[in-house]
Amino acid sequence: MDDRANISLADLDREALFHPVSSIHDLQTKGPVIYTGAQGVEVTREGGQTLIDMGAGLWCVNVGYGRPELVAAGAQAMQDLSFQHFFGGASAEPTIRLADRLLGLFNETVPGADMARVFFGCSGSDANDTALKLVIYYNNLRGLPAKKKVISRKGAYHGLTYAAASLTGIEGYHTAFDLPMPGVLHTSCPHHYAFAQDGETEAAFTDRLIVELEEMIAREGADTVAAFIAEPVMGTGGVFLPPAGYFDRVQQVLDRHDILLIADEVITGFGRTGAWFGSETYGIRPDIVSLAKGLTSAYFPMSASIVSRRIWEVLEGASAKMGALMHGFTYSGHPVGAAIAMANLDLMEAEDMPANAARLGPVLLEALRSKVGDHPLVGDIRGVGLMAAVEFVADRATRARLPVGAHKLVAAHAMNQGVLTRALPFLPVTSMSPPLSITEGQIDEATTRYARALEAATPEMLAL
Amino acid sequence: MDDRANISLADLDREALFHPVSSIHDLQTKGPVIYTGAQGVEVTREGGQTLIDMGAGLWCVNVGYGRPELVAAGAQAMQDLSFQHFFGGASAEPTIRLADRLLGLFNETVPGADMARVFFGCSGSDANDTALKLVIYYNNLRGLPAKKKVISRKGAYHGLTYAAASLTGIEGYHTAFDLPMPGVLHTSCPHHYAFAQDGETEAAFTDRLIVELEEMIAREGADTVAAFIAEPVMGTGGVFLPPAGYFDRVQQVLDRHDILLIADEVITGFGRTGAWFGSETYGIRPDIVSLAKGLTSAYFPMSASIVSRRIWEVLEGASAKMGALMHGFTYSGHPVGAAIAMANLDLMEAEDMPANAARLGPVLLEALRSKVGDHPLVGDIRGVGLMAAVEFVADRATRARLPVGAHKLVAAHAMNQGVLTRALPFLPVTSMSPPLSITEGQIDEATTRYARALEAATPEMLAL
Repeated sequence: MDDRANISLADLDREALFHPVSSIHDLQTKGPVIYTGAQGVEVTREGGQTLIDMGAGLWCVNVGYGRPELVAAGAQAMQDLSFQHFFGGASAEPTIRLADRLLGLFNETVPGADMARVFFGCSGSDANDTALKLVIYYNNLRGLPAKKKVISRKGAYHGLTYAAASLTGIEGYHTAFDLPMPGVLHTSCPHHYAFAQDGETEAAFTDRLIVELEEMIAREGADTVAAFIAEPVMGTGGVFLPPAGYFDRVQQVLDRHDILLIADEVITGFGRTGAWFGSETYGIRPDIVSLAKGLTSAYFPMSASIVSRRIWEVLEGASAKMGALMHGFTYSGHPVGAAIAMANLDLMEAEDMPANAARLGPVLLEALRSKVGDHPLVGDIRGVGLMAAVEFVADRATRARLPVGAHKLVAAHAMNQGVLTRALPFLPVTSMSPPLSITEGQIDEATTRYARALEAATPEMLAL
Repeated sequence: MDDRANISLADLDREALFHPVSSIHDLQTKGPVIYTGAQGVEVTREGGQTLIDMGAGLWCVNVGYGRPELVAAGAQAMQDLSFQHFFGGASAEPTIRLADRLLGLFNETVPGADMARVFFGCSGSDANDTALKLVIYYNNLRGLPAKKKVISRKGAYHGLTYAAASLTGIEGYHTAFDLPMPGVLHTSCPHHYAFAQDGETEAAFTDRLIVELEEMIAREGADTVAAFIAEPVMGTGGVFLPPAGYFDRVQQVLDRHDILLIADEVITGFGRTGAWFGSETYGIRPDIVSLAKGLTSAYFPMSASIVSRRIWEVLEGASAKMGALMHGFTYSGHPVGAAIAMANLDLMEAEDMPANAARLGPVLLEALRSKVGDHPLVGDIRGVGLMAAVEFVADRATRARLPVGAHKLVAAHAMNQGVLTRALPFLPVTSMSPPLSITEGQIDEATTRYARALEAATPEMLAL
């Protein structure tokens, strides 16, 4: 590697690295933004600038960066058993304990939950991909080979494997990939602020969404629809909170038509909404739950799919006849990831992070409202737990949409001011989802920097 | 967790864990096989039995278990920067260095290679899923919207996401999952021993496979076929070495029809075949290379997709118009994984593990031939580098197939004798793919135990 020492990291990056979800053109012209370290809620850029990470990476560093407890757990686990697969009934203690703990945590905190087993993978994408495969398998075992379609929602983000990207309901992720694949449908986005009709109340908006869902099921035939997939709070779409009564009504429809509910809790899981799971926050009783991100606070790629007793009983009942269930990944249940997840959960419990999120969510919203709430381009400020959004509009009265890219200017200025926020790809929304270990003082500082950034960005936004 | 302390790990496993690629029925009746630790080439079971792991996990622990250099690199990286995403041009040094190193390693070792960039994921499955998405994207950018089909091969294993499982050519992974998806075709398995006609030479067998491939392309229309995917040596299928001239001839066909070649080097990468990459061993010039397993020796879930200059130039040329390339994963390029991969490559270079595999491969084959080669149920012993197989038959003269499950008896007895081998799901084949750090003495001991196991299993095999 010695001959590479004279080349700048930025140039090496441009010449070697294929970045995910990035513009090649921007990288070639402007180069990458290189980070050198991170501690607690702060990250450090090449050159020494520190920034408050109000995104927690990509909604994932729930306990903050560089926590010694997680580092120690990971190092010890790697020393003891650096890898173990779980194929053909092979097993290892950290993963068994984690499965048992997740099952208990979900069943104890989510009213009405009756979950039976935990499957592991590496990413939220593969968890949703797994959910789709399990739904198909389940209905084949039940003798319902026509019942396979999955209904997702516009604005949904469910990951980017071929199948997961099909479940995702944001057009930008489909363009030129020939997605979504057949059998995946998208019903309307339940975001009242942007998509309600003039004067439509939340309850009336929910009514309309339910009618639309019923009509879609009737049109397709209930005997062809296997599952409905939903984030309790839509994240990447724009931090869309479900309108009044939404999940309750949706579940009544699904129950009536024998349609499974997949809860994509990749973002909302592990304290983000102020409870352990978004399913608790919104009264959801899922058949499959997809988890990732906060499961390990991103120290190790790991996902989990919790499946309900009614699904498990069908799988188990058919097992003697079917033989091995031929789904899984080499790294399913990785014991190092499981040990890190256990240490992560220990920390979350010891510091009661779901409660911290519940307590600080209103502090964050109030700070945003008082500092940028009156800005003429700020249309809506909303959130639940430590998951918040600022939605921009061209006109507050008409809620007219700002040109694409306007909110990216805010994120760019925020970076200059020392705060990381995310400009989302579906609507002009800035999201904030800091580590759950953040303090009031850090929220105050971050929102002050953000307000300064918005001020600086305003002339450019208006000139677009 | 205190209330769980009185329950055995085996019972907790049965009650909580959804194992990948396992029989639920077997788990409920027999329970899991629990491993407690691993060091070098040996793993330890609950109760204290140690076994030589001739599978290296699932073909993945290339440098052996518990190497302190990898543990130290992982712990340090976690402390410094426990997570960084690479979306929107964000970056970090370990990942930049790893991309640069992989690109150099591949281009320098594989004759004719002209690779341009490295994309990262978490698993071999997601790497092949990524390859499929990139192939579609590439031909859309080139204005060839009809050219999207992918040809794979019967017996191929390419992972188990929805799309990757479609590329996989083993029926057991498709059953009840409604796979493969449309647009994926499977041509014949190039395994001469089992699938050649009576008296057909390797060259004549290759001729026949090439004619079949040409006919498939003609039937489908070359303007509808985008890519061909192949493992240099088919692993999970049964360690199938390509017949004489195979890849040379296949590449001529693909070139003639403007069809991309995806090399799935998830197993063959990083020394397994006695060279750094299987593409070097077999003269393959791929357009996309899928890597995982040996990249980190399984200490951390990480995959890499290396893409060729001709693909990259199309992606880059369209970038200003297309905007961000909307594919990737939260954990794409994880800096902890990259640091572990760098330490892993350092170790592989310092101990020249590809050369070790090249030197010990013949030792392993010779040991197997001398110890089990004359057994009446052993039809074929073959391998390349440290990737070997014993194929069982009911009759050596007719090569008649043994009943399904016969070879599983050998693997079960081998475990009792203290050696881990794998009973593969496609043909009655036991595979061996030990860590590349194995010694001659360990090979001798492992094959002696294996021979003892085969002897013990024989009456049961004959009674099936």
